[in-house]
Amino acid sequence: MKSIRVTLPGHRHEILVEPGLTGLIPKLLKDRGLSDSVFVVTSPRIQKLYHQALTGAWPGDMPPPVFLQVPEGESSKSLEMASRLYTRLIRQGADRSAVVVALGGGVIGDLAGFVAATYLRGIRFVQVPTTLLAQIDSSIGGKVGINHELGKNLIGAFHQPSLVLSDPSLLLTLAEREWHSGLFEAVKYGIISSSRLFAFIESRLEAIRHREMDAITRLIVECAAIKARVISKDEKESGLRMILNFGHTVGHALEAACGYGKLRHGEAVGWGMLFAIEYSERKGLTSSRAARRMRELICALGLPRLPRLRSDEILASMEQDKKRRGRVLRLVVPSRIGRVSVVEAEDRESIRAALRGSGIVR
Amino acid sequence: MKSIRVTLPGHRHEILVEPGLTGLIPKLLKDRGLSDSVFVVTSPRIQKLYHQALTGAWPGDMPPPVFLQVPEGESSKSLEMASRLYTRLIRQGADRSAVVVALGGGVIGDLAGFVAATYLRGIRFVQVPTTLLAQIDSSIGGKVGINHELGKNLIGAFHQPSLVLSDPSLLLTLAEREWHSGLFEAVKYGIISSSRLFAFIESRLEAIRHREMDAITRLIVECAAIKARVISKDEKESGLRMILNFGHTVGHALEAACGYGKLRHGEAVGWGMLFAIEYSERKGLTSSRAARRMRELICALGLPRLPRLRSDEILASMEQDKKRRGRVLRLVVPSRIGRVSVVEAEDRESIRAALRGSGIVR
Repeated sequence: MKSIRVTLPGHRHEILVEPGLTGLIPKLLKDRGLSDSVFVVTSPRIQKLYHQALTGAWPGDMPPPVFLQVPEGESSKSLEMASRLYTRLIRQGADRSAVVVALGGGVIGDLAGFVAATYLRGIRFVQVPTTLLAQIDSSIGGKVGINHELGKNLIGAFHQPSLVLSDPSLLLTLAEREWHSGLFEAVKYGIISSSRLFAFIESRLEAIRHREMDAITRLIVECAAIKARVISKDEKESGLRMILNFGHTVGHALEAACGYGKLRHGEAVGWGMLFAIEYSERKGLTSSRAARRMRELICALGLPRLPRLRSDEILASMEQDKKRRGRVLRLVVPSRIGRVSVVEAEDRESIRAALRGSGIVR
Repeated sequence: MKSIRVTLPGHRHEILVEPGLTGLIPKLLKDRGLSDSVFVVTSPRIQKLYHQALTGAWPGDMPPPVFLQVPEGESSKSLEMASRLYTRLIRQGADRSAVVVALGGGVIGDLAGFVAATYLRGIRFVQVPTTLLAQIDSSIGGKVGINHELGKNLIGAFHQPSLVLSDPSLLLTLAEREWHSGLFEAVKYGIISSSRLFAFIESRLEAIRHREMDAITRLIVECAAIKARVISKDEKESGLRMILNFGHTVGHALEAACGYGKLRHGEAVGWGMLFAIEYSERKGLTSSRAARRMRELICALGLPRLPRLRSDEILASMEQDKKRRGRVLRLVVPSRIGRVSVVEAEDRESIRAALRGSGIVR
């Protein structure tokens, strides 16, 4: 079993990655003192898929887990759904020894994590991510939160999980589009931090696309290790952690402009990376050769066509990004494969040009 | 100006205490880089009282503060009110540089602090407490939160203020009962940690009751320093911080049993302290002489009569206390004036006896 250690001021935990790990969850929780009273937040569909694997091996001397179901989809990341979970925790008598297990994708992890962060001023929680995106990104780093009707992730907290359990075999049931969407984030890690990972994805692309277990396990381990390293150096996003936003400034704007749910998050990040590569090349910050290699890998994953968009609306949305401080727009751009830098974009015309050049605006 | 320093892992801030400090708030914020965009959460009544003092000296080169009003009273500590504040912050364009100033008593501080803790995963906030209870207790320590319809303070976070500004002259407008209610918490600090403070309250009781400025300023400084010391050693209530709950286990149960709002929090703590003193004396953990001295000071402050209560309902409520872990009921009891210890009460009959002996149950 691969173990990645996350070490933060006053907190440390492991990320475990192993195909078939789901059946070992009861024991893994017990060994770490996380089994007093377990509340599994999940969706009806996911519970149906993994209920047997999770509870089949539940030992008789451990209180059985209580399942708290929430509907699938982004709309569950709401204050109202958090409120319903609080009510159920209270009615079930959950005290400070309770452990919330988030069994699902990013929506479940963010929502359950937010509830764990704020119930009784914070109880422990464990991430059991069931999508590629959640296994390599959202389950790691302690960012939890819910949406507001005026914007995504505007309400939230930093609350580190006590354990992250990633079972790559759960990804075999993912829909094709979901799977490919997650791969854009994997490519992101290669570009921001590891030319070796980037080359691995290039060379094993077919095996990864077909979800061969050894290839995707290595992919998850490498990506998770990069994210763990970045957040260990910068938990609260004061500096380095910003590089994780490569592709995200424009990505978030595209998600908003296309209407949430139309474009997958990973797909939006894919387009956002094409923008950042274009911007970087035009400013002479990266070579044409590196830019071409990056573009080729992103396009090989298959980006969906965008609707007709105006650069004004994308710019307006970028300027509302919550990462912004004051008027300055900061962009993460690649300098070479495996390295990015943060630049301040005062000049709106260069952004428009890169939006056109990358094919986002026609 | 008296300054008390709070030093926590990864965070430090000051508590400033000075009569008339309110007029200096703009400058105090500016000197500490807390003036970029200021949102003052307060009630209409409190804003009316202090608007002039606060904004009269606001310099022209600082963006004027935005006032966000919430109704007075415990019912504002709700998820719904938090949601309304999020909406207003978003509509006003509050970004990560925004500072929330909580101008009010414990309700305002807890609510505004919770919103600051969870807006954009946490923005800075400043406590400007306007009640005695808030100046000596709730504004210090970073506990923020809201109520759930099934119980008080069940939803919350630890989020340290960037600054606490206590102006004792604001307390001159407090209603008599509010003032006396706060004094029970001051006596609590004496019993748990400082025989000198206890003796000071005993000897200057008339000056304190009549709110003579030198006496109440010293009272606030000493109490705030004790709380700052305790939380600096134990931010998240894993051990020492528990002593701050002296009088609170029964106190919370009495608030619930009498119906919230009937009994002031401080008054409930007053009765709770009488219970703990009685329990301690019966178990031989404190001397009769010390017990008598403590009882006399508490009773001199004037405790309101309780309605007829049954020990069963008080016990049931104590057992639901969120501080509980598993079945064990822990009580904070005085050993002598200035020192308390935490005992585990397995034996329910001793609790019943102390409830009767202290006059809570007739």
